[in-house]
Amino acid sequence: MIRLNENYSKLKASYLFADIAKRVNAYVAAHPDKPVIRLGIGDVTEPLPPVCVEALHAATDEMANRATFKGYGPEQGYAFLREAIAQHDYAARGCEISADEIFISDGSKCDCGNIQEIFATDVRLAIPDPVYPVYVDTNVMAGRTGANVDGRYQGITYLDCTPANGYVPAIPGVATDLIYLCFPNNPTGAVATREQLAAWVAYAKANKAIILFDSAYEAYIRDPQIPRSIFEIPGAREVAIEFRSFSKTAGFTGTRCAYTVVPKSLMAYDAAGAAHPVHALWNRRHTTKFNGVAYPIQKAAAAIYTPAGKQQTGDLINFYLANAKLIREAMTKLGFTCIGGDNAPYIWVNTGRDSWEFFDLLLNKAQVVCTPGAGFGKCGEGHVRISAFNSRANVETALARIAAALK
Amino acid sequence: MIRLNENYSKLKASYLFADIAKRVNAYVAAHPDKPVIRLGIGDVTEPLPPVCVEALHAATDEMANRATFKGYGPEQGYAFLREAIAQHDYAARGCEISADEIFISDGSKCDCGNIQEIFATDVRLAIPDPVYPVYVDTNVMAGRTGANVDGRYQGITYLDCTPANGYVPAIPGVATDLIYLCFPNNPTGAVATREQLAAWVAYAKANKAIILFDSAYEAYIRDPQIPRSIFEIPGAREVAIEFRSFSKTAGFTGTRCAYTVVPKSLMAYDAAGAAHPVHALWNRRHTTKFNGVAYPIQKAAAAIYTPAGKQQTGDLINFYLANAKLIREAMTKLGFTCIGGDNAPYIWVNTGRDSWEFFDLLLNKAQVVCTPGAGFGKCGEGHVRISAFNSRANVETALARIAAALK
Repeated sequence: MIRLNENYSKLKASYLFADIAKRVNAYVAAHPDKPVIRLGIGDVTEPLPPVCVEALHAATDEMANRATFKGYGPEQGYAFLREAIAQHDYAARGCEISADEIFISDGSKCDCGNIQEIFATDVRLAIPDPVYPVYVDTNVMAGRTGANVDGRYQGITYLDCTPANGYVPAIPGVATDLIYLCFPNNPTGAVATREQLAAWVAYAKANKAIILFDSAYEAYIRDPQIPRSIFEIPGAREVAIEFRSFSKTAGFTGTRCAYTVVPKSLMAYDAAGAAHPVHALWNRRHTTKFNGVAYPIQKAAAAIYTPAGKQQTGDLINFYLANAKLIREAMTKLGFTCIGGDNAPYIWVNTGRDSWEFFDLLLNKAQVVCTPGAGFGKCGEGHVRISAFNSRANVETALARIAAALK
Repeated sequence: MIRLNENYSKLKASYLFADIAKRVNAYVAAHPDKPVIRLGIGDVTEPLPPVCVEALHAATDEMANRATFKGYGPEQGYAFLREAIAQHDYAARGCEISADEIFISDGSKCDCGNIQEIFATDVRLAIPDPVYPVYVDTNVMAGRTGANVDGRYQGITYLDCTPANGYVPAIPGVATDLIYLCFPNNPTGAVATREQLAAWVAYAKANKAIILFDSAYEAYIRDPQIPRSIFEIPGAREVAIEFRSFSKTAGFTGTRCAYTVVPKSLMAYDAAGAAHPVHALWNRRHTTKFNGVAYPIQKAAAAIYTPAGKQQTGDLINFYLANAKLIREAMTKLGFTCIGGDNAPYIWVNTGRDSWEFFDLLLNKAQVVCTPGAGFGKCGEGHVRISAFNSRANVETALARIAAALK
């Protein structure tokens, strides 16, 4: 008899975006004359940068010609892209990362979800709250947690992100083995200082732990003092893996390209305490279960690193950050304490009331969709996330409506 | 202390293609004047069909325009592609498969590798030998096997594919839970008859087992009596999952698109014996760890189902099959018993000697690269796989050289 992976039954069904869609659809059906503006889901709205469009066309033409056609590429990605990343995202910022430590993939969601496979099932987890649900759910599926009790899974050390700690979690008082961190943070938009990241690296080193550092939003950092990579912290090559994506950097949410950095000096241990390189483990996993990213997509990603590509993606991010600034200023003016929006495309609004109640208020009174913080974890209660991904006109209209509704 | 998944240490390092590359590179370095023809790895060589090229260009232009830009799509794939598949690959062949039972992905390697996650770690496996290594390795990584002893993992029921059974394995005498089958087969090129597949479906039904049916090469079937889908067999909706790919159908090895069919009537069981739909489990897995295939790639895949697309992919496959026919005829004429090549792009040659020895002979005497059968499993010993993926001129030159070398 074929039996299922019963860990799946522990998963708390994620009703968040389904619930949002249901409420929004009901509102739209009842009020067809009142157009709704969506600042909920974190999806980009502006077209691909011209350099990426040109590269996609050119690579498509290569695929149309026998002499330049590309079949299977290296599972880890083409050297032209891995080398561009090593040079522009790391060497240029003083980080020692070589091209063969970079694994190209079709998304950070996949990488963040798959990485846990190479570790033992009984390692101790530390995961922030509020959080991108993939970190938690993939570990539940793998059997690393107990049941969900009162909104939290047993066996996880939750890293509370609250107004009291500025939404940057404190180092836990207990030893953990696998630590998920995300800066600039989704959903809060918080960033971590060099000192805060150094403390995490020191904690990981002391515990022989590994930090899984999600920096999918690093391109939004405008404060030059804030590290854009965990590898800007001395010693991080011995304790960290980094995930990055072109989704929010270059509008690739529908184009699909990302990468993961696994330093060769990073070790994990067997039961006898012997050290083994994590790079070899991840390489085995990646080459066995993945077959590389489409050649035209990799060419489009590489185009981002040209001078024109840097200019165009910089302009794109500045556009979204200008939206973010408007949102944060408007919400602050209305009396709410906000973080994010300065070095991230998300604004985390402390609403001072039930997050679904605030969601309903914005939907019904202002026809604006946000994301209730409670959907991201217990510490998200009392907050909503507002996304800067929309046109300027929509953002301005949304803010005017919110101001009128909350007057 | 972060501990690794020690199941990875059980993996027998796959030296097959690395070993081949090493021997080929050494030969090329020593004989720069003797050009080598590669009929080893199963990668396509001809350009993308014009309909796919046109669709990629058109979709790229959509991504360049705010009004038609696509961000995140449905993780399961766009309806336009799922519906085209349901209609043309299933309904048109009398199979009852609905669009929402089809999950679009970036490759069958990923799907074949990931599917095992949704089942219990102690289910009993049945896996063919010789075999595409991903079926075995992903189960080793997940801890479903014991050690590798004398070339075989403990805890797997191997399904021997030998000259005696025409390379179509017999139904095992023991009960198993999760059965991997691949027809047309990689590496042997063997196909299964309707009666043979019906026997597997009956076996699975009797044992409450699930068949994982890899039909990545179904487009190469030219014998109208041979089923192209497991779902042509009555009752298969209750016992089977099917994997298909555009890689060999439309030259997508470097473009990356595939799909998996999970019928809603397929069940797996919990420890108490209660039935649960596998569709919901796979949907949860797919949406949690995957973020959809790039929009332009899905548009390119959908173009295959237009009348022009069917004509062009049909021509492409006929071209490779004509190569295959030449190879099989030439090897047969040289006195070897061969299968495959008629309904598959691979010819499985019974060499009557050590497969690496035969590989070396072809490389050194004919400058032709094939794949030694031993690399696919114990039952592959004494065979080599020759691939039909190359230009006509290269295939003809290779066959002339082989004939001269073996005279």
